[in-house]
This record gives sequence, structure tokens and C-alpha cells, in this order.
Amino acid sequence: MPKSLDPPPNGIITLLTDFGMQDPFVGVMKGVILGIGRDCTLVDLTHEIPPQNIVAGMFLLNASVTYFPEGTVHLAVVDPGVGSERKAIAVSALGHLFVAPDNGLLTGIIHRADEYRAVYLENPHFFLNSISQSFHGRDIFAPVAAHLACGTSLHALGSSCEAPVLLEVPTPTVTSDTILGEVLYVDHFGNLITNISRTIYDAKFTGKQIRVEICGQEIPGLSSCYAAVDPGTLLAIFTSFDRLEIAQRDGNAGRALDAEIGTQVRVCSVVVY
Amino acid sequence: MPKSLDPPPNGIITLLTDFGMQDPFVGVMKGVILGIGRDCTLVDLTHEIPPQNIVAGMFLLNASVTYFPEGTVHLAVVDPGVGSERKAIAVSALGHLFVAPDNGLLTGIIHRADEYRAVYLENPHFFLNSISQSFHGRDIFAPVAAHLACGTSLHALGSSCEAPVLLEVPTPTVTSDTILGEVLYVDHFGNLITNISRTIYDAKFTGKQIRVEICGQEIPGLSSCYAAVDPGTLLAIFTSFDRLEIAQRDGNAGRALDAEIGTQVRVCSVVVY
Amino acid sequence: MPKSLDPPPNGIITLLTDFGMQDPFVGVMKGVILGIGRDCTLVDLTHEIPPQNIVAGMFLLNASVTYFPEGTVHLAVVDPGVGSERKAIAVSALGHLFVAPDNGLLTGIIHRADEYRAVYLENPHFFLNSISQSFHGRDIFAPVAAHLACGTSLHALGSSCEAPVLLEVPTPTVTSDTILGEVLYVDHFGNLITNISRTIYDAKFTGKQIRVEICGQEIPGLSSCYAAVDPGTLLAIFTSFDRLEIAQRDGNAGRALDAEIGTQVRVCSVVVY
Repeated sequence: MPKSLDPPPNGIITLLTDFGMQDPFVGVMKGVILGIGRDCTLVDLTHEIPPQNIVAGMFLLNASVTYFPEGTVHLAVVDPGVGSERKAIAVSALGHLFVAPDNGLLTGIIHRADEYRAVYLENPHFFLNSISQSFHGRDIFAPVAAHLACGTSLHALGSSCEAPVLLEVPTPTVTSDTILGEVLYVDHFGNLITNISRTIYDAKFTGKQIRVEICGQEIPGLSSCYAAVDPGTLLAIFTSFDRLEIAQRDGNAGRALDAEIGTQVRVCSVVVY
Repeated sequence: MPKSLDPPPNGIITLLTDFGMQDPFVGVMKGVILGIGRDCTLVDLTHEIPPQNIVAGMFLLNASVTYFPEGTVHLAVVDPGVGSERKAIAVSALGHLFVAPDNGLLTGIIHRADEYRAVYLENPHFFLNSISQSFHGRDIFAPVAAHLACGTSLHALGSSCEAPVLLEVPTPTVTSDTILGEVLYVDHFGNLITNISRTIYDAKFTGKQIRVEICGQEIPGLSSCYAAVDPGTLLAIFTSFDRLEIAQRDGNAGRALDAEIGTQVRVCSVVVY
Repeated sequence: MPKSLDPPPNGIITLLTDFGMQDPFVGVMKGVILGIGRDCTLVDLTHEIPPQNIVAGMFLLNASVTYFPEGTVHLAVVDPGVGSERKAIAVSALGHLFVAPDNGLLTGIIHRADEYRAVYLENPHFFLNSISQSFHGRDIFAPVAAHLACGTSLHALGSSCEAPVLLEVPTPTVTSDTILGEVLYVDHFGNLITNISRTIYDAKFTGKQIRVEICGQEIPGLSSCYAAVDPGTLLAIFTSFDRLEIAQRDGNAGRALDAEIGTQVRVCSVVVY
């Protein structure tokens, strides 16, 4: 069922940034939001996106939003171009609303949406009175998100954006008996999340035996849960991101394999005699 | 006064996990909760439990819950066995409600409670529609916690759990003139929290002079506050956890002593001539 | 326009501490607050103030509060003297309310305010029943903040404080053609925030060409945004704190320069022939 492009806002605003938790930047954005929409409910997605890493921000935002109720506003700021000529946008897609710099951070959302609507943030009526060159999260994105959560319509914010900036996302290479992908993200547990989706995997290997190769190690077959192998053992699993993940039971696969974002992962079919 | 086993929920849900703050796992659980109980108030206890460390999670949960008003729901997920045969439970105790894997995480709560009631989480009506093998925090624990906070009764969730899994918690050894304990937890300041409770201490040493031995160092007597000794000096103190704690004024005792969880701590009476 | 000294509370409470996010100390304070004021809205400013660093706490609190709506209560705890003779205070200033140890943490707020009112926290009616020697954040500051947010007046808390403790804050030295300042704070991105305010800078250098010297490096002129220089290049910029900041585009100036709090920064006028 395609989602509405005009979901009534539910008052929830999520925040995803690379600002970290050390400084009060996030708290200040929340102060600005609550000054406009006193009853908004604020939820942190994460503020630990690696600094200026738009791809990681795009991936985690895309993996999270549909667990929120329709009509949620998602405020995402990973913004190395702040203060330059880069634009800022608001987007309606998937039954949710998004506010972000126009730098590709919403690529995953836009790719998944059957239809979407995007506008540039141009109307200063919805900004703070004074706009800094370095903190549009506070001066532009936070107040716009608050106004959207309070019912302001997209078209009030600015003119239509026909072609938001989109990132090139690395896709797996499929050959006759292998899928060659790469690590997209390393999570808190050191689990290696790849760009091999369950859809791509199933189309190739459903009902077949496979092995996974990474960093010179071979992992035989898929596991159904972490506890299915012995402690310290590497495993391959489809997890909550719905992507092939390489993990180490009760350990840290990233450190054990010295793997990182971009590390190659190969899935091969195994001939059974 | 024994607390009710059927406290009316107050709409507050706390979250304690080992998920860290880098990934949006916690934010996604909050999205699921707010989709069920839009007016719930969410409070993070901590998400920095050392990965898979059930004992640390048990200790910190137990130290925190009674500062919340009666009827709070506490959602705790430290879950190395996710996806295996381990069960999931909800417990009513101490006037609060708890949702957790049945792996001992609630041991401290159950030991303190005069009476408690526990059920297995069996009724999929209260879960998300699709259950992953790796993220029951999102798919099972979060929706169940939200339903409890909205008034669902324990018995609706599943059958009675007569014997929740309990951990063996290390207890101090008391001899004629010493108490031998160990470090249970090292906090953010490097303070070493031991398993020597004030009750055990008072029964042995009230009105007596003592010294504390740890890592080859001797600390003479108890201090009443950190500022009672000179900067850089080690001290022994009963603090907010109501347990004997070894600290270093304006410093980090864990690093100064190279102490960690499990390090031995001895309290000895001192003969005064 | 001077702000009211009796702003009606708006129910928002911010929290700024050096407690970190590893332990449940902050969560426990929130439990205490919600037990008194169930409808309070809680916003974390930061809990990553370097342990016992009152100056950093003072700086970040001062930089944040005016982005919150009038009538917000700000709870600030950086408290190396907890349990000693140091007093605790509540202050009304800038249209906001503050609760903190009387150790200089509110110096910046008091310096900025045209007028303020301060009282000592003396009335145990507004504390928890049992007061520990080590965690006044939980036992005194949290309940007092909750009562203030619920409408308790300052004078109910205790007697007037005529002279709150104030810190000496390092100020820049201005000579005929230079301003000599220092680094006050290093943020999450490694940006070096100095004690050279825009007001001091403009009075000296408006319309003139300058260069900035730090750690043996020279930076020519001010930039208007991070993206105005090439990646990896150092720049000097006035940012959201309204203070001169030394940054590295897409990098970490603190690590690149091996600079830290207290590092000297010199701004010199450049003669143009």
C-alpha cells in the first residue's frame, strides 16, 4: 500500500546527526524545537555517525524510519557543506517527513519510495532570526522540523525540488555462482553489515548450500542466530537490518578480522557431491 | 510495606541495554513503543552495559529502579542468547514491572522482592508481526513493554513462570576480623563498587577502626565524602549504591590501582593500643 | 529587554553533568524528577563534561540556555566538592531558573544577567528523605529542579545568597595590534573554541586584514564557512558559539595541532602594502 504524501504529523521528531554526545549541540536543537512545538516528543536515533560520513548516516536513517508511526518527522544532519552553496530540503515519503541538507543523506529513503515530494527550505519565516554559517541544525533544520511537526505544510517552506542530490550506493556484483559485496557499516558489537540484501541473496541461493569468504577466512553456511555457533566462532546471518551480516559469537568480528567499511565479502555456492 | 504486584502503570518506561549509542537500535525500540503507546515517557537508564555482561546489567538495574515512581515499566535487554531457546519473561515485583530475557538479568530484583509474579512472553498478539532472530529488543521486548505501560495485564502475555533463571552473585567472605569481597562494577569516574554492602559492614565493624586493602595498597578508615581527603588520595566510602566503594579524589581509582571487575578487596579491623 | 526574575516555569528541565552515559546516574535523577513532576519534559544538554571540570561545564551551559524557551529549569552538576561544606544554590536569571552546586558553575550566567536572584538550598522538604554524601544530583538537585518546574518559588527553598561563588575566567589580552587569547574548549569535531568573542574581535579588527597564529602555524584571514577552504586546510571562523574557532576542514584541528584547553591563540593585524 503506497503511503500518503500528506501524513498528518504525529508530533514525534527523531534526530540523527554526527554531532556526538560530548557537546550540547543536540540539546540546543531540542531547545529550539520545544520553543516552537512545546508538546513534540523527541527521540534520538543516533548522534554518533562518523563525522561527515553521509553514507553511514543514509544507511542508518533508512534502516530505522519505518519502525516509527506514520507522520513522524525525521531530522537528519550530517552536513560537511554547511554554510556553502549546498541547499537544504524537506521531503515527504513513505508516510514520513524528512528534513536534511540536500547532500544525498536521504538517498535511501528516496530510492525506496514509490513516490515522494521534495521542497527547498527557502522561507526564512520558519528559521531562527539569526542564521550562523556553521550550525544550520540549530538555525534552520530544528525550527523547520518543529513547524512540520506542528502542521506546517511542505509547500509553505519553499519551491519544489525536482532532483534532490542522490549518492551512488555500492551494489553487489552477481556472477554465475557468487555474489561479491562489501561491508557498509560496522555496528557497536563489531558486527559487519554488508550491502547484500536478503532479496539479492534469495534470488541467487535459495535452497542451495553456500560459504562466505571475508579477509581470507571461510564461513560455512548461514546461521539462524548468534547462539547457534560456539563462542568465538565467526558466523554469517541475516539480521534485523535484513542484510547479510558477519558476526563473531560473544566477540567482535570487526576487530577479529580487522575488517572495516568497504571490506569485500564473497558468497559462493558450494557443490555437494 | 510490601509493594503491590498489580501496580497501575504510570506510563513511564525505562530502557537498559548493552546496545551502545552508536547505532539506532535504541531509537528504533522507542519508535516501536511510541507506535503502541504514543503518550509513554521514555527514560534511558544506560545503554553502555559491557556487551553480553548480564551481571553488570543486573547490578545497575537493581541499583536504579526504586528511584522511579511505582508502576514504572523497566525494559532490560542484555541478551547473548537471542534467537536460541532462552525464554523471555515479564515480572511484577517491588511495585514495578520488568520485561527481559530469562537469563538472570532480573536476579537482583527477584532476590529483593518479598513476593513477585513472573510470566513467559508467549502471546504473539503483543509482538511485532515479523520476529527477527537477532533483535528481540525491537520485535518482542519493546512492544510488550509498551502494552504493559498501556495497561495490559501480566497474565495476558503468557503462562506463569515458576522458576526464572537466577545468577549466582559473588558474596563476601566474613571471617573473625575481616571481610573479603570483590569489585562488582567500575563506574564512569573509575570508582570501584564492591559487593560489600553497608549491612554486612555494619554488622561486623560498627564503632571499630578498620583499614581497607586492595591491589597491595592500604587505605586507613572510611571517609565521609570525596572532599575529605587530599586530591589524588585513595579513599574508602559508602556511596549512593550503599556499597563499599574505593575512589581516588579528583582521580580515577580503577586506573590508579589497575583494578577491574573481580579485583579482591579486604576490610580488616585495626587493633588500637 | 531585561528578562523576568519570576518566569512562570514551562515544565522543561535540562540536565548538564559530568556523570557520563555509562552509569545509570542520569537515569536515576530523571526517575526522581518524574516522581515529583510526572509531566516534566527532560532534555539532556550533555553528560560528558570532563570529570570535575567546572570551567568547561560553565562554558557549555552558558552557550546553551538561551536557545530554550523562557521558564526552563537548568539542572547542572559538576561537583567535586559534593559532601563537603560547599553550598548548593538556585538562581533566577535571564528568564530561566538554575540549580547547581555553589562552586562557580553558574559564573557565565551571572555575569551575563543584568539582574539575578539566588538562594541557598536549605529546606529539606524539597530534598529526598535520605541524603547521601556522594550523590546530591539525585538527593537534592533533581528534586529541587522538579519542584521549581512545578511552580515552587525560589524563596521557599532557603535564605538569600548574596554572593554566589564566581570563577575567574581567562580573558584575552589586547595590545596595539594583537589579541592574545586561549583555547577554552575542544568540541567533538576537534574544533578549538577560544575565549576571543566576536565583540572583542570586531572592536579591534573590523575591516582590517588579520592572520591567526596557533602552535607555530599561521592561518591567513577569517573564513565564512568550513567549506570555504580545501579539505585538510586549517581555518579561523566565528561559529555558533560567537567565538573565534580554529578548525580543520573535514578534519580534527585539536589532533592536527596537538592543541588543548589553554593553548595560546594570537590574532595579528596584517599590514597591506
